[in-house]
Formats: sequence, structure tokens, C-alpha cells
Amino acid sequence: MTSWVTDPAFARDQPFGPQTLPYGVIDVGSDTDGPRVAVRLGDHALPLRSVAHDLGDLAGLVSGPSLDPLLAATRAEWSELRARLVALVSQPSTPTGATLVPLRDVRMALPFTVGDYVDFYSSRHHAENVGRIMRPDSDPLLPNWTHLPVGYHGRSGTVVVSGTGIERPHGQRRGSSGPHFGPSGRLDIEAEVGFVCGGPVARRVPTSAVAEHIFGVVLVNDWSARDIQGWEYQPLGPFLGKSFATSVSAWITPLDALAEARVPVPAVDHPRVPYLVEDTPGGLDLRLAVEWNGTVVSRPRFADMSYSCAQQLAHMTVNGATVRPGDLFASGTVSGPEPAQRGCFLELSWGGQEEITLADGVTRTFLEDGDEVVITATAPGEDGAVVGIAPVRGRVLPAVDL
Amino acid sequence: MTSWVTDPAFARDQPFGPQTLPYGVIDVGSDTDGPRVAVRLGDHALPLRSVAHDLGDLAGLVSGPSLDPLLAATRAEWSELRARLVALVSQPSTPTGATLVPLRDVRMALPFTVGDYVDFYSSRHHAENVGRIMRPDSDPLLPNWTHLPVGYHGRSGTVVVSGTGIERPHGQRRGSSGPHFGPSGRLDIEAEVGFVCGGPVARRVPTSAVAEHIFGVVLVNDWSARDIQGWEYQPLGPFLGKSFATSVSAWITPLDALAEARVPVPAVDHPRVPYLVEDTPGGLDLRLAVEWNGTVVSRPRFADMSYSCAQQLAHMTVNGATVRPGDLFASGTVSGPEPAQRGCFLELSWGGQEEITLADGVTRTFLEDGDEVVITATAPGEDGAVVGIAPVRGRVLPAVDL
Repeated sequence: MTSWVTDPAFARDQPFGPQTLPYGVIDVGSDTDGPRVAVRLGDHALPLRSVAHDLGDLAGLVSGPSLDPLLAATRAEWSELRARLVALVSQPSTPTGATLVPLRDVRMALPFTVGDYVDFYSSRHHAENVGRIMRPDSDPLLPNWTHLPVGYHGRSGTVVVSGTGIERPHGQRRGSSGPHFGPSGRLDIEAEVGFVCGGPVARRVPTSAVAEHIFGVVLVNDWSARDIQGWEYQPLGPFLGKSFATSVSAWITPLDALAEARVPVPAVDHPRVPYLVEDTPGGLDLRLAVEWNGTVVSRPRFADMSYSCAQQLAHMTVNGATVRPGDLFASGTVSGPEPAQRGCFLELSWGGQEEITLADGVTRTFLEDGDEVVITATAPGEDGAVVGIAPVRGRVLPAVDL
Repeated sequence: MTSWVTDPAFARDQPFGPQTLPYGVIDVGSDTDGPRVAVRLGDHALPLRSVAHDLGDLAGLVSGPSLDPLLAATRAEWSELRARLVALVSQPSTPTGATLVPLRDVRMALPFTVGDYVDFYSSRHHAENVGRIMRPDSDPLLPNWTHLPVGYHGRSGTVVVSGTGIERPHGQRRGSSGPHFGPSGRLDIEAEVGFVCGGPVARRVPTSAVAEHIFGVVLVNDWSARDIQGWEYQPLGPFLGKSFATSVSAWITPLDALAEARVPVPAVDHPRVPYLVEDTPGGLDLRLAVEWNGTVVSRPRFADMSYSCAQQLAHMTVNGATVRPGDLFASGTVSGPEPAQRGCFLELSWGGQEEITLADGVTRTFLEDGDEVVITATAPGEDGAVVGIAPVRGRVLPAVDL
């Protein structure tokens, strides 16, 4: 039985085949209807309002201009909607009203209203590398690091969708006689995995309940101005060095699509505080790639992360803080033990000391105006299928004149 | 000419007389209408929907269940609405439909949807005291402090309205052989002033444009679990030690009401980076009082702060980050040079070493279950009038059993 969806990219050995079905919000320029929720089928988008009658009582969750109503629903509804979509895209005849829009013809919108945005720091390799670069005279890993997932709040108002241009930020940086002010000279990326929260508002979410409160997964580029960050960050953490922009994938891959990718997080050599213990493997075997102007400069593996999203969510709420639909948290830079697995240019260039050569022979340490970075990821699916997390892409725009 | 408002607290020598007119959202239990926007007149609330016909084309900004539409309007509309309200509350005859609801009969709701919440650290006295307590072996003030308003993002989802009970948070704290987990034993307050943003979405807001982007002022209690914070905060700043709750006043005093309270911020002994220079005095002469179970334990003065709200907003957006209606930023703990002007118990008890005696002879270092803290503030108004910032009040509830 062949599906009515004839796009060759809609195949099980392709990242956006029927095993993935990520949700996004498309904006078709020629249309007066404005943004609408869609599901990605290969290189096409299926606007879900066009198949509302096939989605029955769940159609209302995906008929508007954002994923907010879907995020505010429940895990049971998410799974049921996914089952109906699987049936819909598998049937031989085109559902009445269904139209596939080529992705090249759509602009993607930020698919949900970001509540709180938290950024963790859960790669031991990244934390150790940064510690060695920034604080060469002391222990690279601080004493708390192996006991809790270190994290901080970022700026939710500057989370932008993949494809948005990233203007080089201005800021203060350390100078020999007082600070200098001007465009950042050390603009960097951080390749991360993000978790989009949903379900009922909750406090003290145990690791076992993660699936009730995480809707899906995106890639995150936590753009970082290292010179601004280095001057400002003590004692209260990163602020303007990070807050100018954070890019996320345009499509959210449902957590349900990643069931086969579960792996345990690495063990620690001391007992865990009980709320961070997990009974089932909470890590994810996502394989990332970082492309700098088309050259893959790094292939970090998410399985190397020391804390899972379940542990991060349990930590974030153990003090009684609520988690709401639309909250977003990111893993922290994904770096592995090998140099070619480092997830930011601060590490890849070892603090700007070692040049990185791109395919065209050009060398880099930090980002130049016009550079484009694309982060991609795939995960193993059922029976050899490939599950994709949509790429996060961004090009550096010159600083404005002030 | 006598006003139709006969409440004796609605007087120019009282904090909530006609010179103040703060906005809030009341929820009248016995009514089926749900929350509605109101203005405070002495010890009464005037629901603005009841006088919609007197507000003309601006009535739609204040007819709903939150201040969000008003915050999304412009400075010109804010000023015009205030002028109409001044006329309305000054007239001798009761406007048709106007009903005054005693404050004792209403529950207050959080009056707006909080976008991003940023907390600064702009009291030199506080920063120096905390530096001396937490890092006794090094310079109390870090090198960046006099050059920029140090700040960080907090959790907007746990901003709560004055009167909300504050459950003692659980968390990890430093132990001699690994961390302990349990209810915080060093629960503290921070007395702060908060600024509620409004107007069009903007980037790179100069200090001269602050009035276009700040709607009004609240008091903030940035509840802090010092033991949790002390263990977690390096290197990325405070997280769970602060994120469990942040209380704000139920009424927002418009910036327009504070015109007479403007004072310059203290000078610095080096040139300012140009974007932080202000041409008109941006500080505010607010006199705070901190009551602990009814005893005033501190009287911090906001005029002692080293950075103004204009400088903080300019800093927060100079990197290109947007400010949106509903964003909230707080000053940081307001502490003065004298011990009786310290704005948190960490300072008042000097790290828990010195007991504070309350009026009933009971002593304290940090908060006990059942304790209540109320922060109040007034500012000088025109011709000797007193302008109030509504109090922020909270009682400590016991930790839940886990």
C-alpha cells in the first residue's frame, strides 16, 4: 500500500519520513490566512487545518496560528493526534482538502510562545574545556557540577526561529584601562538540544513523569559573544553575551518519535541525590553535526551528555518552581571527548588560539559577518528508520552603526 | 470642590490619594465577572469597566481581565488615560455606574503577563556587603561592577502577586561530604524596586527614551534561599535559589506619578561608557521600609542605588535584545550605607552571625515558617503630596513533605 504522499524525502530512511512527523508553523506568503500549524512530510508541509475533519475532536488543537493550544494539551492527546496523523499520511488516497506545500515556498514562524527559557551546562567535556580555557589555574570542573545540572535562565523574548539573521551584538568587553564598547569580536555558537514543555502546569516533576511534561525536541543555537560574556559574567552569570538571540528549529520533533533513541546517561562515581535518579534511560542518542559555511567542523553526540532532560526538568522544579506549556530548556553545549566533537568555536579554536580550516581553505577562529552555521541531528528510529530533528540555521549580519 | 470619593485615605497626604492612581487587577469573589482592571483610590478599588463611558476611546485598554492591553499601548495613551482618571476622581458628582469596592473585599490578581524578568544588582552597598560575606578573602566589588549594571535573568513563570504564600523551597546545599538535600535553612528576602515595561517592542533604548518603555513601578521581594544559591551559583549564577517565587506589588504606580521624585544617581570616579550617560536625573527618591512580623528592621533608600532604571534598560537592550510590553526588571536589593538600611537578612544578620531582635523580643537570622514580610515605599509628590508604591507582602509556608 503506497501513501498518497509521493515526496521521495517522505521515506523511512530519510529524516522526515512518516516515523518523524514534526510540527511547525508555516507562513505562506501568497495567502491571506496568516500562519498556520503544519506537519512536515519530507520536503513538504501539510497544513493541518486542511485536514481538520480527519483529526476529529483534536482538530482544534492544531487549527490556529501557533502550537500553543497543542502544548497546553496532554500526553494522551499528543499520542492520539500522532496516531491519527500516522494513519492519515499512510492511507493510499489523498484526504479531502489536503494540500502539500513545498517547503521552499513557505516562511517558517516561531512555532510557540516561549515561556521561560533555561539553559543548562550538562556536557562534562564542554564544562571541562571551558574551565581549562577560562580559568587555567584552577580545577576545570567546579565541585557542584557532578551533583546537579548547572543551569541559568536565558531571555525568552529573543528566541528566534531557524533562518533568522543574527546581527552582531554590541557590548562592553575587558580592556587594559577600563572596558571597550563596540561590536563583539568573538561571536560564537553553542550547539544544543532543546526541550519544549507542555501538559498541565506542574511543580516537582519526578524523572519518571518527564513524558507528561515534554512535548518534543528542537535544536538550539545559543549564540554567544565571548568577549561580552567574559567581562560581565561574574558573579551572576551570562547576560548580554547570550541574550541578543537564541535560534531554535522551526519544527518540533515529538518525544514519541524518539522512543528508540533512549540511552542511559553516563554513570557518576558517587550516589545521586534521590530526585535525580532515573529508573529508565533518559538520555537520547542524537548525532549532531555543525556546519560552518558548508563545512562540517564538528560531530557532537548527545549520548555523551551527563544529565538527561528528565533530570534537568526534575531539578528545575524540585524547589517548587512551576513548569508551564511553552517553557523551553536547552541541554547546554553538546561536546564529546574528541576535538572533532566540540560544540562551540571557543572550544574548537581553544579560546581563539587554533585556527579552524573550512573546505574552501579559509580559516576561522570566531564568526565573521556573512558566515552561516547550520546544526543538524538525527536519531535511530524503529527497524533502521532515521528520525530527524529539524536543522537550526543562522547567518551573521554585520553590527548596526550606533 | 470636593470629590465624590469620600474615602479619607484618598488624600494628598496619604500614599494612595489622587496624586498616585495605581492600576491593578481585582477579583471580587462574589461576582461572576472574573478579574477586572481597577485603579486604587485610598482603601478602595474603582473597577474601570464601570466608568468605561467616561474613558472614551481609551476604555478598551482597561476593560479586560489584565493590564496587558494597557502595557501594549503608548506613553501618550498612558498619559491621556491618567489625565481622564484625574478628572474623573476629582469631579464632585459620582460618575454614572461608578462603584467603589473596599479593598478588604477583593482578592488581587497578578496584574499582567510577565514576559522576561531580569534582576539587577545595582546597590553598591549590597554588592560590597555580599562580597565581604561570601568572598571574605577577595575584593568585595568585582572589576566590572562600576562599569555596567550587573544583572541576570530570573524566572518569569514564578512571579506572584503580593499576598501569595511562599512555600519554603527544597534544594541541594553544600555539605562536608557531598551535598545535602532538604528544605532551605537560610530563607531570605531581597527588598527591590521593579519596573514594568510597556510601549512598542524596542531594541537599543537610549536612556533618554525610558519613559516610552517603562509604564510603572512596583515593589519586589526576590525571595532567596541562600544555602541553595551558595552551592549552585558558580559559574552561571543564581538559579533554584531564586526561581521558586518572586513577589510583586498588586498595584503598579505609573511612572508619571513619580516626576517629583527624580534624583541623580551617585557619580562614578571614571568616565561612563556613552550609552550609560543620562542627561536628566534617572534615579528615584523612594523610601522603603522592611517589616518583619510587624517590626521595621530596615529603611533602605532607593536614591542610594548606583544605576537608574534608564541605565538598566539601556544596558539590557544595547546588544540588540528586544524589550516587550510585560517585561519586568528589578533593581537588585536596595541597601544603604548604614546597617539599618540593609535590604536583605543575609546582610542584616551578616551571613547569619548576628541576630535581629523583633518587637516581641524574638530573635531571627533567616526566615522561620509563619513569618510575614511586608515591604512598603513612598516617594515625594508635588507640593508635599506623598506618592505610594503598593506594599509587597508574603508569609512563609512550611516546606511540603517530599
